[in-house]
Amino acid sequence: MFAPGTYAGRREALRREIKSGIAVFPGNTEAAFNYPANTYHFRQDSTFSYFFGLNQPDLAGIIDFDSGAELLFGNDVDMDDIIWMGPQPSMADRGKLVGIDRTAPLQGFGDYIAEALNKGRKVHFLPPYRGETRIQLWTLLGIPVAEQKAAASVELIKAVVKLRSIKSAEEIAEIEKMVDVAYLMHTTAMKMAHPGIVEQEIAGTIEGIALANAGPVSFPVILSVNGQTLHNHYHGNTLSEGRMMVVDAGCESEESLYSSDITRTVPVGGKFNERQRGIYEIVLNANLKAIAAIKPGIPYREVHLLAAKTIADGLKALGLMKGDTQAAVEAGAHALFFPHGLGHMMGMDVHDMENLGENYVGYDEEITRASQFGTAFLRLGRRLQPGFVLTVEPGIYFIPALIDQWKAEGKFTEFINYEKVETYKDFGGIRIEDDVLVTETGNRVLGRPIPKTVAEIEAIMKK
Amino acid sequence: MFAPGTYAGRREALRREIKSGIAVFPGNTEAAFNYPANTYHFRQDSTFSYFFGLNQPDLAGIIDFDSGAELLFGNDVDMDDIIWMGPQPSMADRGKLVGIDRTAPLQGFGDYIAEALNKGRKVHFLPPYRGETRIQLWTLLGIPVAEQKAAASVELIKAVVKLRSIKSAEEIAEIEKMVDVAYLMHTTAMKMAHPGIVEQEIAGTIEGIALANAGPVSFPVILSVNGQTLHNHYHGNTLSEGRMMVVDAGCESEESLYSSDITRTVPVGGKFNERQRGIYEIVLNANLKAIAAIKPGIPYREVHLLAAKTIADGLKALGLMKGDTQAAVEAGAHALFFPHGLGHMMGMDVHDMENLGENYVGYDEEITRASQFGTAFLRLGRRLQPGFVLTVEPGIYFIPALIDQWKAEGKFTEFINYEKVETYKDFGGIRIEDDVLVTETGNRVLGRPIPKTVAEIEAIMKK
Ligand SMILES: [Mn+2]
Ligand SMILES: [Mn+2]
Repeated sequence: MFAPGTYAGRREALRREIKSGIAVFPGNTEAAFNYPANTYHFRQDSTFSYFFGLNQPDLAGIIDFDSGAELLFGNDVDMDDIIWMGPQPSMADRGKLVGIDRTAPLQGFGDYIAEALNKGRKVHFLPPYRGETRIQLWTLLGIPVAEQKAAASVELIKAVVKLRSIKSAEEIAEIEKMVDVAYLMHTTAMKMAHPGIVEQEIAGTIEGIALANAGPVSFPVILSVNGQTLHNHYHGNTLSEGRMMVVDAGCESEESLYSSDITRTVPVGGKFNERQRGIYEIVLNANLKAIAAIKPGIPYREVHLLAAKTIADGLKALGLMKGDTQAAVEAGAHALFFPHGLGHMMGMDVHDMENLGENYVGYDEEITRASQFGTAFLRLGRRLQPGFVLTVEPGIYFIPALIDQWKAEGKFTEFINYEKVETYKDFGGIRIEDDVLVTETGNRVLGRPIPKTVAEIEAIMKK
Repeated sequence: MFAPGTYAGRREALRREIKSGIAVFPGNTEAAFNYPANTYHFRQDSTFSYFFGLNQPDLAGIIDFDSGAELLFGNDVDMDDIIWMGPQPSMADRGKLVGIDRTAPLQGFGDYIAEALNKGRKVHFLPPYRGETRIQLWTLLGIPVAEQKAAASVELIKAVVKLRSIKSAEEIAEIEKMVDVAYLMHTTAMKMAHPGIVEQEIAGTIEGIALANAGPVSFPVILSVNGQTLHNHYHGNTLSEGRMMVVDAGCESEESLYSSDITRTVPVGGKFNERQRGIYEIVLNANLKAIAAIKPGIPYREVHLLAAKTIADGLKALGLMKGDTQAAVEAGAHALFFPHGLGHMMGMDVHDMENLGENYVGYDEEITRASQFGTAFLRLGRRLQPGFVLTVEPGIYFIPALIDQWKAEGKFTEFINYEKVETYKDFGGIRIEDDVLVTETGNRVLGRPIPKTVAEIEAIMKK
């Protein structure tokens, strides 16, 4: 946890953004795994944690913009709780940790809301993403589940996005710690990636490294020799010579929730063959060129398109694409190979604030989301500002089902050499992802550098 | 997964138990971690998996007791799904895997229910335990969340408990595989338990072993030098000489969901001191005597009380208790040291079927739950039957807050030597837990034996 002043300062900043009404922040409850008392690893709501810092279930906060009151709700423990969970600080003591002196039992949360509703005051809330929170909002606000998303406060969403988008030095330090743990995860995976091992052994081991050194993984580990499947959570394949292993994995701090999100792709066995190296160097080039372009003021969509152009140029040199690569990218032909966005905001959420709505986080009045296949999936398009932390994650994939579909439709035959592409259908995919801070003058790749060039990867895998 | 016939046989057995109406089995949905698209490790509902075998989200099943129809609902994937998740079997193919030929899109689940309700037919459902399922039942059945538990079908609960309580040879084999992975988890923890290491390092490492070799942990790892806190999920203490480390941990099969649940307690550094050995031998004796008593027909509450008596006798020999130990156990004085139950059913849930209601699983018309502090927490009290799998987990704890309370109240001064107990307030706690199958003639401790005697533990920790 940060100092009490950090949380007080964030709440004060929010009070400057919104003029009237109250904002309600239900913390997360425990999430049942297979029965009520057997729960998943507790995960606090990020926005609750941002303003109220405490990572225990069954808490709630209110900020009253008219009176300036800041309240924290939760129940003190009894003897049964002590036997099962050990001694716990009182709610009053918890409040002190985050600079709040008005604490009350959880019942008071509903009471305060009821009184506000009674007086016709505006009650701001954020879109819920868990069934338990939806039921809670239905009960406390009387808004049916199906109507909650539309009833969420756009004013509150925009204010929270404004604050959380700019990371402070102490937040950046937390993210860097998590990249350093990702270093351990990824270099361990590289060293294990030899023929005969099953993906699950590596995936489980690196998730254990996250848990042992930081906290849970920031998202389910993607680890596969079928990298062409973008979010592959199947870990049943046995590694074999000639395949590439994509590992997209990061962790989050148990205490602060800040996360990392790194992807590396390595050849099973540790030595790139010529075909692998050819594609790999294109993706690496796209990653490096994109990073070099990151600076305040540049729209991230422009960086995305720069990466797409780099990929198209590289694929043309290999004979997989053809024609005018600028025109190809404008038309969206590159998306056969690079069908996703270049990156996204990062922070307490690995896709930061995605629960508030991607377009509020990644777009604005000036730059709105594209509709073209590929670029439409870009989560962050707007101009960059100092203090943004984002990912840079270009990739090239050979997705047999997509290739077959486009080929059958005769799509972009002026830009794509389908005959050659056919010979790559067994290739898999490659993605290279780093976490990058936008600085006043440019950018900084966060954390301990993780082997990325062909030489660096072959060197660490040889050991 | 088992053969299609296994699931067909289970459904047929259920159809023999219930005469009319339909039973609805909503499979679990993904559970959001911090935003809708970032989810926890998917966990299927155990009862859905028992009857329908498939471990993907957004499936549902119906068994129609009047017509005998068995239906499986779920949507086939589209091209976007293939890009992100890879090729998936069709619903028709999924149905074949579990012996069902009537499959339909998920929408059909609600339609079938609506038609049954329209005709005034009985719709049996089990108590929900996730917000998402509660909202689904509210939408499909029109039963408000607060009324769902009471509206659940007792007839269906009892039928499911009857079937799931008796484990087949193939289910027992799955549980044994999970105990074998628990062997790796526990022996690794023992080897790591040296002064200076932080609990989290060990806890994360053994969770990684579960993930690498089986699947997720079957419940959040309990690992603490403060074993007196029964469900301690705080892992921030540094191990130091003189403390004991309690590890209560198991895993479950990614595929079949069957679980293990093992506790071992070891002295930090690997050598028991005299005080530790004294308490340890009592708990071990209680564990062994209880196991020896397990056989068909014996009420498990009797075994629990045998363990309690063994503990009271041992503590009396050490001077911590006094007087007539039989009378002490009848009065509940032992519960100062052993405040929980001896064990619980195990299977696809580590507390098997706890979501259906503990009293339906662990008690019956003959043996109902006790109200006395300690024994009231016993989850399984009824007579044992061949095919039951259960845990045996006696413990002795020195819980300072509880000792202070009982002493202040002058509770059981005829049985408890508080003066001596005071000198143990820094001890912590010890628990020893095994997974045991009730056989036709007695019992069998499942899986590869995990070091348990003082000599075995000291030997493995020396390596
Ligand atoms: Mn990413
Ligand atoms: Mn247990």
